[in-house]
Amino acid sequence: MSERITGPSFFIGRGGDGADGLISFGSGQPDLAPPDGVFEAMWNFRGFKYGLVQGDELLHDALAQDYPHADAEQFVISNGASEAIDLVLRALYEPGAQVALQRPYYYSYPHNVTLAGIELAYYDLVDGKIDLDEFEHAVHTCRAVVINSPSNPTSTVQEVDTLKNIEEICDRRGIWVISYEVYKDLIYVRENYLIQGTRVVTINSFSKTFAMCGYRVGYLWARDRDLVSRIVDMKSRTAMNTSSVGQAMALAGLGVRAAHIVATVPVWKERRDLIYAGMQKLGLEVWKPEGAFYILPKIKDPTRAMHDLYHHYKLIAYDGTWFGAPDRLRFSFALDAAKIEEGLKRLGKFLANEYCSY
Amino acid sequence: MSERITGPSFFIGRGGDGADGLISFGSGQPDLAPPDGVFEAMWNFRGFKYGLVQGDELLHDALAQDYPHADAEQFVISNGASEAIDLVLRALYEPGAQVALQRPYYYSYPHNVTLAGIELAYYDLVDGKIDLDEFEHAVHTCRAVVINSPSNPTSTVQEVDTLKNIEEICDRRGIWVISYEVYKDLIYVRENYLIQGTRVVTINSFSKTFAMCGYRVGYLWARDRDLVSRIVDMKSRTAMNTSSVGQAMALAGLGVRAAHIVATVPVWKERRDLIYAGMQKLGLEVWKPEGAFYILPKIKDPTRAMHDLYHHYKLIAYDGTWFGAPDRLRFSFALDAAKIEEGLKRLGKFLANEYCSY
Repeated sequence: MSERITGPSFFIGRGGDGADGLISFGSGQPDLAPPDGVFEAMWNFRGFKYGLVQGDELLHDALAQDYPHADAEQFVISNGASEAIDLVLRALYEPGAQVALQRPYYYSYPHNVTLAGIELAYYDLVDGKIDLDEFEHAVHTCRAVVINSPSNPTSTVQEVDTLKNIEEICDRRGIWVISYEVYKDLIYVRENYLIQGTRVVTINSFSKTFAMCGYRVGYLWARDRDLVSRIVDMKSRTAMNTSSVGQAMALAGLGVRAAHIVATVPVWKERRDLIYAGMQKLGLEVWKPEGAFYILPKIKDPTRAMHDLYHHYKLIAYDGTWFGAPDRLRFSFALDAAKIEEGLKRLGKFLANEYCSY
Repeated sequence: MSERITGPSFFIGRGGDGADGLISFGSGQPDLAPPDGVFEAMWNFRGFKYGLVQGDELLHDALAQDYPHADAEQFVISNGASEAIDLVLRALYEPGAQVALQRPYYYSYPHNVTLAGIELAYYDLVDGKIDLDEFEHAVHTCRAVVINSPSNPTSTVQEVDTLKNIEEICDRRGIWVISYEVYKDLIYVRENYLIQGTRVVTINSFSKTFAMCGYRVGYLWARDRDLVSRIVDMKSRTAMNTSSVGQAMALAGLGVRAAHIVATVPVWKERRDLIYAGMQKLGLEVWKPEGAFYILPKIKDPTRAMHDLYHHYKLIAYDGTWFGAPDRLRFSFALDAAKIEEGLKRLGKFLANEYCSY
């Protein structure tokens, strides 16, 4: 009897290292190692005491230099972007509050919103892009919106004009913008456009750019002093400081960011080209990834396809249903070219042999 | 103009290392370094990927061996005990739910409860001890109780008979017991008594025993499979795995726990004796600390006393008001004998020179 896969956590932290013969297009985490300096920061670390709940001051200073018009005290270092969004949503909670999500969405967003006691609203992306009429219609009753560009799982990058319009709409209507930009350094089509405004909260992470997923270091940047203060107070109850050694590693990473991006983005782009061409060759309908490292082919009954691929082809892909895309599968291409090619072969066999018989 | 101190986070991560001339009886964190093996685990660490959200399996196995009748899959590794209690309370939330706290309480508990959307109930300790009539009266309408023995801030250890009665009362009434035992390895009067039961959740931390505060590794042990599963699902949204390197350090710590306790508890006991005798000599009314590293003298207007001590005597002590003890100050004695003596001198001067003029 084949094991039933109930959600992404079935796979997180398991498999895909090659030893088990699995090819994992599952978890969205880099296989390329962190820059040397990041490890050295850990190997040289000697502290053991509590740090400031808001985060290490050197790291705040370094982040403030990375962003225009930013002050060090506007940053809060968090246990990855996951804790950052949880804290922001809990801080924005009020009775009856609604938060709007783009759909398809990162699978945790709806849970984050409801865990904070907030109601959900959705608007559908059109071919991975935000339609401003749909957007404005969905958000006008909302307290906040989550923007995710480049997006997980669509790997689309929103147009600069769209993002500027969103700034204007939300500013005019007094809506908070939670801009979840963890893939801002992995863009293939243009420079990242930073959403700005007094009620904007930018969330980022060291996980993707610096391959630090397991160390859990992210941050939020809120321009509103009162919001920062409420978040820090909450974090002093629910977590205390983010791992002190993780923050030292993050600081080391920031110091070599530009060089690391120059070294790694071409690798990501090559993989993107490989999997995009491979999927097209298999006749699958896909959007060309513009950022991040996901591709989202259209497929009939993705839940069944995911189970078949895992149990019979030793291939991990995620059910689009988890992302609000019930006619698609999500493939992360955070693995080397040889594995991508082997994975495409298995996918081709699956499509030829099994899928026709549905 | 003297800066206003609004809560413990004013002090956390600041001061008390001697360089600034401050004597800190503030934050409750060991000054004794972690055992060597803990640091070595960090210096030898090479991983960078996501770990299992529930925690590292080797660490689960080691913990299961440390507790009677425990299974590895009943443990969840968390960002300190702080995240553990946040997760448990959020998982136990239901509309109208109440949670009972002993008073004085650890200052974050009331916030943890209300952040989870749960209502608060209290019962007062009598000279630092649980009175079972008060307890049963307060808890009979509650979904859960938090038990904290040894307690922060009272440093009292509850009687074994009391704890057995609590097991019986809560079992009979179907009340969850959240047993927050982060000081279980720092007891001066007897062995720890482990509260057991099907609806018991034990919370612990590597922060105090192993001086790992800044690394943020704790855990919960829940006997209820469904609760564990809800907590892990929640953590996969709000934080993902606890720091991978932190968990490797925790595992190394567990391996030398017995030897480390033998080496450190006598040091804590000596400090306990020193500060207890010193406070008695100053004529202060205190309970003799039975565990943990706090002492809680009775003092008039502790808010004003805290400010005066900090601004005029360079001494940090915490306002008892934060702990539901509005007639006391909390002193943590997690600092060396010379500093304790200097601190007692300053406290003596304060009492002689200033406090009389209130």
